Amino acid sequence: MVVVVVTPSTPDRRRQVAEAVLQIIASRGTDAVSVREVAAALDVSIGAIQHYFSTKAEMVEFAFGHSVQRVRDRLIDLPQTGDRARDIRTVLSELLPLDETRRAEVAIHLAFASLAATTPGLQSIQRDLLTGIRNELSEALGPGHDTQAAMLLGAVDGLALHAISAPGGLDADQLERALAVAVTAALHPTRKKVRKHNEDR
Amino acid sequence: MVVVVVTPSTPDRRRQVAEAVLQIIASRGTDAVSVREVAAALDVSIGAIQHYFSTKAEMVEFAFGHSVQRVRDRLIDLPQTGDRARDIRTVLSELLPLDETRRAEVAIHLAFASLAATTPGLQSIQRDLLTGIRNELSEALGPGHDTQAAMLLGAVDGLALHAISAPGGLDADQLERALAVAVTAALHPTRKKVRKHNEDR
Repeated sequence: MVVVVVTPSTPDRRRQVAEAVLQIIASRGTDAVSVREVAAALDVSIGAIQHYFSTKAEMVEFAFGHSVQRVRDRLIDLPQTGDRARDIRTVLSELLPLDETRRAEVAIHLAFASLAATTPGLQSIQRDLLTGIRNELSEALGPGHDTQAAMLLGAVDGLALHAISAPGGLDADQLERALAVAVTAALHPTRKKVRKHNEDR
Repeated sequence: MVVVVVTPSTPDRRRQVAEAVLQIIASRGTDAVSVREVAAALDVSIGAIQHYFSTKAEMVEFAFGHSVQRVRDRLIDLPQTGDRARDIRTVLSELLPLDETRRAEVAIHLAFASLAATTPGLQSIQRDLLTGIRNELSEALGPGHDTQAAMLLGAVDGLALHAISAPGGLDADQLERALAVAVTAALHPTRKKVRKHNEDR
């Protein structure tokens, strides 16, 4: 007799594993992630995890992609007002650790970025993510703003990195003011260019 | 007979251990660091390492402090020209992964920052480091530039994070141009009139 096991919930199971990986990373760092730990967190056997991910690397890679998708979905849903500076600030402040949800997300993203430095498998996910956001930012800032977009995304991720790695340093208010300075600088590059821009209008 | 073993080289031994820790982190990430690995790298016994550092955490903390000191020593030795924008760019470009030495340093710093997010023992080192650099930057930029200093240091570390975690994304030229934009923006905040004018559009 052939028993056909139908598992329509496969993608959900993979997502559950990914969520468990992300929770472990947010609370204890990437060092703490292992197939054994994830199995324990989900109260399933190691074999059950290995059914979906044959290696730890594959599991971590999927979890990174999952976390990136989750953040992007949220960014897409943000209300837009038409005020360019304000809308850009609204989107980018989602990437700063201004509350517990975002703090956990930033810790996860930072852990992946750090892991990517020595893990080629994660680098392409990180490159696609950054290139995608930079292109969108560049479009939002206006033509010829590629360097400004790179600077701005750098400022956001750097501020997030500083806030998460040195609690008690920059507070939420300082983060938001620094973001506002970066957005203004990116929209209005230098005084020379601003004058030129205004002359052209 | 009492044999007195004089070990004037103790601090050097600790530095050697720190260097080995940093090398492992730069090439294989923090996950790969252990007392056993460091002992193997230095071709000494585990006990020899434990003589200087009783726990892995203590060893990693010392290595972080050592790496911070090494970077600061180099920054202090940089020639100053008196051209404020250029001098600030010169100092900050030392924190970008523009060659192999700096690439390794950035990978190490990023790994520590990520580890600090879940390791309170490392957070005070990171906080002191960032506060120190921000204060110096703020002074170099001019009175009332605290927010600009925070933005600028964020931009530098964020750009470094992006370059190291997504090779093939930003190249050295793009990094230097983005740094120049951030320095100009920090030195010459956009005039309120311009901002107001654009907000009204």
